[in-house]
Amino acid sequence: MTEPLAPGATIGILGGGQLGRMLSVAAARLGFRCHVYDPAPEPPAGHVADRVTTAPYEDTEALAAFAASVDVVTYEFENIPTAALNAIEAQVAIRPNRRTLAVSQDRLTEKAFVTELGLKTAPFAAVDDEVDLAEAMAEIGLPAILKTRRLGYDGKGQARINRPEDAPAALAAMDGAPAILEGFVSFTREISVIAARGLTGEVACYDPGLNVHRDGILHTTRVPAPLTTAQRTDAVLLAGRLLNALDYVGVMGVELFVTPDGLLVNEIAPRVHNSGHWTQDGCMIDQFEQHIRAIAGWPLGDGARHSDIEMENLIGDDIDRVPALARDPAVALHLYGKAEARPGRKMGHVNRWLGPASLK
Amino acid sequence: MTEPLAPGATIGILGGGQLGRMLSVAAARLGFRCHVYDPAPEPPAGHVADRVTTAPYEDTEALAAFAASVDVVTYEFENIPTAALNAIEAQVAIRPNRRTLAVSQDRLTEKAFVTELGLKTAPFAAVDDEVDLAEAMAEIGLPAILKTRRLGYDGKGQARINRPEDAPAALAAMDGAPAILEGFVSFTREISVIAARGLTGEVACYDPGLNVHRDGILHTTRVPAPLTTAQRTDAVLLAGRLLNALDYVGVMGVELFVTPDGLLVNEIAPRVHNSGHWTQDGCMIDQFEQHIRAIAGWPLGDGARHSDIEMENLIGDDIDRVPALARDPAVALHLYGKAEARPGRKMGHVNRWLGPASLK
Repeated sequence: MTEPLAPGATIGILGGGQLGRMLSVAAARLGFRCHVYDPAPEPPAGHVADRVTTAPYEDTEALAAFAASVDVVTYEFENIPTAALNAIEAQVAIRPNRRTLAVSQDRLTEKAFVTELGLKTAPFAAVDDEVDLAEAMAEIGLPAILKTRRLGYDGKGQARINRPEDAPAALAAMDGAPAILEGFVSFTREISVIAARGLTGEVACYDPGLNVHRDGILHTTRVPAPLTTAQRTDAVLLAGRLLNALDYVGVMGVELFVTPDGLLVNEIAPRVHNSGHWTQDGCMIDQFEQHIRAIAGWPLGDGARHSDIEMENLIGDDIDRVPALARDPAVALHLYGKAEARPGRKMGHVNRWLGPASLK
Repeated sequence: MTEPLAPGATIGILGGGQLGRMLSVAAARLGFRCHVYDPAPEPPAGHVADRVTTAPYEDTEALAAFAASVDVVTYEFENIPTAALNAIEAQVAIRPNRRTLAVSQDRLTEKAFVTELGLKTAPFAAVDDEVDLAEAMAEIGLPAILKTRRLGYDGKGQARINRPEDAPAALAAMDGAPAILEGFVSFTREISVIAARGLTGEVACYDPGLNVHRDGILHTTRVPAPLTTAQRTDAVLLAGRLLNALDYVGVMGVELFVTPDGLLVNEIAPRVHNSGHWTQDGCMIDQFEQHIRAIAGWPLGDGARHSDIEMENLIGDDIDRVPALARDPAVALHLYGKAEARPGRKMGHVNRWLGPASLK
């Protein structure tokens, strides 16, 4: 399919969490319907989707029926089993493409891809056993972080190594999984570029946002980020190079470290990204609609921002602040409809209006 | 129920058209689920609602089951049969209240209510037969418009009387229904105030918008409307008086004529209103969320506007302009997911960003 999807078409979304939920709402704005696939019953996206399938990613029959009912498939997370992707792709296009998923599902592959493109990352080395780890520590230096190559999310599957004595425990924490040792980078700031590439190859980027983390989870993103014009340009060029190299279609979140030596790629996420939620209230076309436009073969929005915004995540019992936040006229609430507030669980976010766009 | 509804509660919406659709999305942003009730299968709101009941408004059993499944009921149109309202209200609160529906379902009752409040309307008189009509024409003068008292919508059930000879045909067009003759008003502009009143009686208004009609259907609404400060104040005070007098809870659309003698009330709509769609892209809290906040007992947004916007309806084959509109970076598309584009049918709207709010 290379023709733009007509309104009325159905978009399949793998994963029914908050990202799928906000994608479904954006798709509806363009006249599309969404069919959400999620192993868990009552996914948040189900409240605002036309159809929901509840089945595991191992159920190829359910996946085939899902694929047959939709006109294109996208996803809200990158760790989708290969067999599931095969079952779907036999019937309908998956966007962003399989190559991107293969690259981003594995921290080692991702970092290798980024460095092969001539872009910088933190120093890294593959670690499969204690011999590898000893060599990697010697090469990279300490402190460093040992991470599983796959399935890492919000600080899980990670162990910090401050001194050589920490190595055995860190390796044990990997539970036998292939790992990667990453060196620390002396960075002044973390920023994100939310970039999009359309079916015909055009690229559009939103203004970079400044990210602040707490306990390993994104806490706030603020636009505009305090950057020089050169840094802004670098960020956009860098994102464009990543998207083009992957023949990417959709929105990608690119986390970058700002260092005295330039921008380093921390992580790429082949999907809408938490650090792009500010676009919902700062732009006419937000990241969710931008992603839907891209995978539907529609023209992209140009990423224009009309307002300065600070996004703040509501994590765990932050949800108790909702009554107070609802009283703040500068705040737009975005709650995810999750029944239970567990520590570390993203329950919603707020976008705070700071003023008309201070940087054009 | 006077306690605020907690996120996770379910809101019942009578009517699954575009207004129900946009209400459902706004409710989801606050963590609510929606259950939509509509006689027609596949209502547009169903694509983004948690649950849909397809049943006629005469099916009291279906209505009772619907009412039992929700925590509060609201509606997207005012011509709901009394028996249906009775079946629902036996179980759960209806907001805005029954009194408002009774007033607004009937053009005569509505105009009588407005004038009793000391507000101005176009001259009007009840017309049940040709004797009434002759008297009304003598009193009001010609040209004038004869309208059925109930069920009028977008120019239907109306007949213009330019000369006395037009009277029999106009009366015949009423098909025996009780009618009202309305005189013409010499007005310079039509504006709308989208006003809201909360469960605890607080009132909030959005900036008035300038409405332009085409073929009897709203074509564009633009904010800010070109008004004097005094006119702005009058519009807000007048809307507040209407809401307070009705002990109203929710969003109301108030259409006003700007005349040399001051503001005249053209029509009130006890619901979110087409002329308030600009708030989706001009405000942090739009009219749909404002309505959900009100009926859920939440604090209202203050109506603050961050941008100047022109809303334009996409009617009938205007939908063919979507590919071109999708290329305009200043335009936000809002399509309703309707399969068939019939002449006069509202298929969607666009909000065009004109700049940061030029009037505070």
